[in-house]
Amino acid sequence: MHRSILFICSLFLCLNYSAQAQAPTFTQVEPGIFKAIIGKPDNFNLLNAAGAIPYHAGLVEMGNAGFPLNKADISATVVNGKTYLRFPLTRTEQLYGFGLNFQTVYQRGKILTLHVDNYAGKDNGRTHAPTPFYVSSSGYGVFINCARYITVYAGTAVRADSKTPAEVLDRNTDKNWKSHPYSDAVEMLIPAEGAEIYIFAGPTPMDAIRRYNLLNGGGCLPPRWGLGFTQRVQRLTDAAGVTAEAKAFEDKGYPLDFIGLEPGWQSKSYPCTFDWDKTRFPDPKALVQDMLKKNIRLNLWTNPYVSPEAPIYKTILPYTASHTVWNGLVPDISLPKARDIFFGQLETGKVDIGISGYKMDEVDGGDGYLWPDVAIFPSGHTAEQMRQTYGLMMQRYVTELYHKRNQRTFGLVRASNGGGASLPYVIYNDYYNHQDFITALINSGFAGVLWTPEVRASKTSEEWLRRFQSNIFSPMAMINAWSSGTKPWTFPDVAEQVKQLANLRMQMMPYWYSEFAKYHFQGIPPFRAMNLEPGFNSTQGIKVVQTKTNLEENPYEESVSKEIKDQYMAGEYLLIAPMFTGQNSRTIILPKGKWFDFYTGKFAGDGEVITVTPGLDKIPVYVKDGGIIPMMPPLLHAPKANQQVDLEIRYYGNKPGTYNLYDDDGETFNYEKGDYSFRQIKVTKQNGKITSSISNAAPGKPNSFKNITFKMMTE
Amino acid sequence: MHRSILFICSLFLCLNYSAQAQAPTFTQVEPGIFKAIIGKPDNFNLLNAAGAIPYHAGLVEMGNAGFPLNKADISATVVNGKTYLRFPLTRTEQLYGFGLNFQTVYQRGKILTLHVDNYAGKDNGRTHAPTPFYVSSSGYGVFINCARYITVYAGTAVRADSKTPAEVLDRNTDKNWKSHPYSDAVEMLIPAEGAEIYIFAGPTPMDAIRRYNLLNGGGCLPPRWGLGFTQRVQRLTDAAGVTAEAKAFEDKGYPLDFIGLEPGWQSKSYPCTFDWDKTRFPDPKALVQDMLKKNIRLNLWTNPYVSPEAPIYKTILPYTASHTVWNGLVPDISLPKARDIFFGQLETGKVDIGISGYKMDEVDGGDGYLWPDVAIFPSGHTAEQMRQTYGLMMQRYVTELYHKRNQRTFGLVRASNGGGASLPYVIYNDYYNHQDFITALINSGFAGVLWTPEVRASKTSEEWLRRFQSNIFSPMAMINAWSSGTKPWTFPDVAEQVKQLANLRMQMMPYWYSEFAKYHFQGIPPFRAMNLEPGFNSTQGIKVVQTKTNLEENPYEESVSKEIKDQYMAGEYLLIAPMFTGQNSRTIILPKGKWFDFYTGKFAGDGEVITVTPGLDKIPVYVKDGGIIPMMPPLLHAPKANQQVDLEIRYYGNKPGTYNLYDDDGETFNYEKGDYSFRQIKVTKQNGKITSSISNAAPGKPNSFKNITFKMMTE
Repeated sequence: MHRSILFICSLFLCLNYSAQAQAPTFTQVEPGIFKAIIGKPDNFNLLNAAGAIPYHAGLVEMGNAGFPLNKADISATVVNGKTYLRFPLTRTEQLYGFGLNFQTVYQRGKILTLHVDNYAGKDNGRTHAPTPFYVSSSGYGVFINCARYITVYAGTAVRADSKTPAEVLDRNTDKNWKSHPYSDAVEMLIPAEGAEIYIFAGPTPMDAIRRYNLLNGGGCLPPRWGLGFTQRVQRLTDAAGVTAEAKAFEDKGYPLDFIGLEPGWQSKSYPCTFDWDKTRFPDPKALVQDMLKKNIRLNLWTNPYVSPEAPIYKTILPYTASHTVWNGLVPDISLPKARDIFFGQLETGKVDIGISGYKMDEVDGGDGYLWPDVAIFPSGHTAEQMRQTYGLMMQRYVTELYHKRNQRTFGLVRASNGGGASLPYVIYNDYYNHQDFITALINSGFAGVLWTPEVRASKTSEEWLRRFQSNIFSPMAMINAWSSGTKPWTFPDVAEQVKQLANLRMQMMPYWYSEFAKYHFQGIPPFRAMNLEPGFNSTQGIKVVQTKTNLEENPYEESVSKEIKDQYMAGEYLLIAPMFTGQNSRTIILPKGKWFDFYTGKFAGDGEVITVTPGLDKIPVYVKDGGIIPMMPPLLHAPKANQQVDLEIRYYGNKPGTYNLYDDDGETFNYEKGDYSFRQIKVTKQNGKITSSISNAAPGKPNSFKNITFKMMTE
Repeated sequence: MHRSILFICSLFLCLNYSAQAQAPTFTQVEPGIFKAIIGKPDNFNLLNAAGAIPYHAGLVEMGNAGFPLNKADISATVVNGKTYLRFPLTRTEQLYGFGLNFQTVYQRGKILTLHVDNYAGKDNGRTHAPTPFYVSSSGYGVFINCARYITVYAGTAVRADSKTPAEVLDRNTDKNWKSHPYSDAVEMLIPAEGAEIYIFAGPTPMDAIRRYNLLNGGGCLPPRWGLGFTQRVQRLTDAAGVTAEAKAFEDKGYPLDFIGLEPGWQSKSYPCTFDWDKTRFPDPKALVQDMLKKNIRLNLWTNPYVSPEAPIYKTILPYTASHTVWNGLVPDISLPKARDIFFGQLETGKVDIGISGYKMDEVDGGDGYLWPDVAIFPSGHTAEQMRQTYGLMMQRYVTELYHKRNQRTFGLVRASNGGGASLPYVIYNDYYNHQDFITALINSGFAGVLWTPEVRASKTSEEWLRRFQSNIFSPMAMINAWSSGTKPWTFPDVAEQVKQLANLRMQMMPYWYSEFAKYHFQGIPPFRAMNLEPGFNSTQGIKVVQTKTNLEENPYEESVSKEIKDQYMAGEYLLIAPMFTGQNSRTIILPKGKWFDFYTGKFAGDGEVITVTPGLDKIPVYVKDGGIIPMMPPLLHAPKANQQVDLEIRYYGNKPGTYNLYDDDGETFNYEKGDYSFRQIKVTKQNGKITSSISNAAPGKPNSFKNITFKMMTE
């Protein structure tokens, strides 16, 4: 008895004094990646939901790096069943990441609850991929491998015992009083009894991101055809309509690599049968095979919610959640039994007849549509854990259907999370703000995901063209006409410009494909923020907007600093500065170092803010000094495996340039067994003399290029 | 060993199969109030944080009533440390409550996370008083006595095993497909291992509300002066400025009962010293006493965050949270030691020199200002529990300072919660939408709180007057000029109208005071929704707005039904229909039964929608048939204890009318010992003959009225 009283007393003390935070113990798990286990982490987490296997070779190639923070400044405590984490933050650091944000790039000063959800217009942590990963401008990264709703105080919480306390001012009289005092920490609250922490060394922020992506298994490498042009047809389009659509593209000379079928391919949807509608699609196999002959693939929309009329309804019922979504059962795909049934249904009569991939809708939110947090799943995973991982698991297990066929897929998904970088899916949503789409593209590079600023419909031909221009400089060039039925030529006055843009997309395929290879093998995000670009000075051209003094309505008024979120980097060399509807001109920040016009090769500026008036037809694009862009002819479809295409290597500026041109069969996973090549391109200019070269692919390795020519873009 | 393995196995089974929900066991704890204890509830909850003691006599007077729901339809389960609750919901029920919402009255279909916070423009559960109480149109109420962030699915979650399943339709082809299928339950998720549930019987929704308020101890009874007129002066006003302000009111003939001093009374603020600024207030006691002689009281603004320069800083330090707010320590006022120091400081040199009360600011949110959820409090209560109860505790312990002096107080607070109905505070905030202020006034009656649509500043004299008109028909008639420095006469062209309105407020004091007595003794909210009014048909005049078909931007489009949230009931007999800036006319729904114009006594309508064009000077107000409004002369200050005033009893319509006129000394808590009177007023009209009477106060009981006259308003 005495002992148990003592035990209770010490427990009581523990609860009361557990604020005495502990510095966690970190172990290096990969070069430059350090892991600590806090408390008793959930068995089910982001990395194992995603099935992530670190790309060890890539991490080894990056080399070792020491622990990037002062370990004593990191603390972790488990109190009352929750995990409290603290990471240091110095005065000058900026923070990036915390998932796919749509309106902000700078995350310092934010309070977020990371929660998979449909983006609802506010960067509050609820988004399609709320990756619990952040990277600091000081050159390190932090990832929390936990499938919970994590609350993050990104430099907002102020501790009473801080060693670097904020200055205390009197609001009555001191004009320098601030509504948000200085905070020297990132703090997190995890509603679980533990978590795994990963710290990524730099020395640069890009290094930390690369290590994060490589821990995920490296970024995804889409099939070559995935980087062509995609058309998603109106939702009730039938087989004849699909054939007609493909023919129209061919006849009009617009590139097309895959067609997406929307809900109407299924006999019923919302909830879904996962079964072809026999009226609209009497012979799906014949259609798919006929399209494949034309080098056009088909991709199928679905959400995972099982209709009472689905063939799998009865067999999957025991493996579904307590609550329904749109009256459909929610398969507990963390259970092997449920997966066998559910993904078996997606395979039979779809993958096995040649369907190239899926678009997996509505695995994100909003709360009013998805399963509630009170839902019970038969695996015992909570509704919260399932919400944080459902999109990851959908991606993983559909990818596995293709992997076992040694066939690559490339699809769309509405939710992802940490651990999913290697899964070949692009995130999309129902939001439709062009500017915010670009911010999402920027933030995708901090979140280990891909994002498409898809084009759906437009009020004017100007908007149509402007959206299209940024769309072709993104991971998936696509029109999603599920509702509108739009085509590339829907606005006749810009139909030709759209065709030129789609052709440009095809011409740049060697560049995009090589950049995705770098995402895979090196972890470098193909689309990313200017802030990761050496020589970019984020204070250039920045506007500090002082809010109007109106204490009646805004008693804690403060100034708002505007971030640069309307230009981004695409691959190694390109700076993209989209134009938005209504704009005739815009400013562009050119980082330090010379930059050249993508179209003309002319010098554009060096470490300065320029103003351009490009006209309606052009999206401003700039190439770094020494930049090399490999291009092919504008084919209507991506080259097939072993098909050789001409290669034009464009060179910009004056500095010696190098480029690693990637090549493989473009369709299989043979690259995982070494069946690929990187060919070194070099161009130098000295005393007006130009030297250019490209190395050969090693014997027996892929070689897709013939008639290789160099084009000097800058005179 | 075998046993512990068995134990672990059974635990595992328990986790997996605990979805088998249990019907909780309810015990009647008061007449018509039933309580169930689920799992292991927190020791620290809303009712005990508020110090609520049920007003048993009032509940007994209401009489017994049976359990209002089918007990088998209620389920409660504790899984993985969280509590899952489910309550039934029939097809036709509407739900009200879930705290102080600002934009909606109907809560069915909502998903809310009840969380004390600054209202940020969306009814999502984050508000100043997120009371976990709802009332059904079917006539029962449900209260969760738990200081956690409770997630509520108010008729949104759909169970796979529902006995009343929603109809399954095909979205591909069926035009009746709905994005939100029918749900037959209110479900809640509580992040704790248990909770206390209270069910309140009807038979009417008003009965359930009354029982809830009486469980809280009955609604608060303000001092009589609290119902007069209040001016909060500009934040840096000094003693001379306060004296001048009072004199200006006197000279110009505007009523004034108390003046609020804003942050500048303290030597430093944000964080606070809780100490008079000796420059601006060299002799606070002399000022307070001088003002009291003029029958004007002083109320002090504060927030609870302790400046390093506060006299109590060092002594309170051990009893404060790990994190600061505006660099101020956060006292853990759940600890007696912290309370002694903190409330001792609020008492000494303030309450004890005659300060009449406090305005307790910033105990609500937002997250970026308040302590973070990672804060640790020395009591061991979590930051979440402290967030949900801090406002309650501030109200409770300041009230106790006054209660021990047998002196009533009436103040302002920015946060409250379930359990706080008896605490004499009115909620205010920084939001400033006149329409939404009225919605909040309506919802306050469902949440056991009071709310003031305070007037701060206005862009035009029209806005000033319109805001003022609804302000005087609210719990606290007040100008909050902390920033603007506005006065009632700031807009000269409406200064006279404002004076008339302030005078009307004073004239109606006997009515307001009696209505608050009914709040206290009977639990009837003085300000409340039309939906609680018999004969109100909420479908009258309702507009169903079909959203525009734009699947590009709103793929799950649905119709939105507009609620009536621009008119409300004030006390037993009055219907208030505020006018908003820019309106010249408006529609008003008059419930079944005759209604008469408050100003003229003329018949206005009966169970119909009328349109009125009242002009700028008038706010439309209607009196129920047989309505009796007791009024006094427009004094400049509330009558003092034992001061007798003339009484004019206005009678409207034709039906026999009755009224319970309340009386006590208006200042002390002697009413708690029975030192009060209810006097029965009766008026009948028969065959043109009018009979009117008022009963006498019992011998020795308060009697504040002389020269009692009756005025027949309707000819």
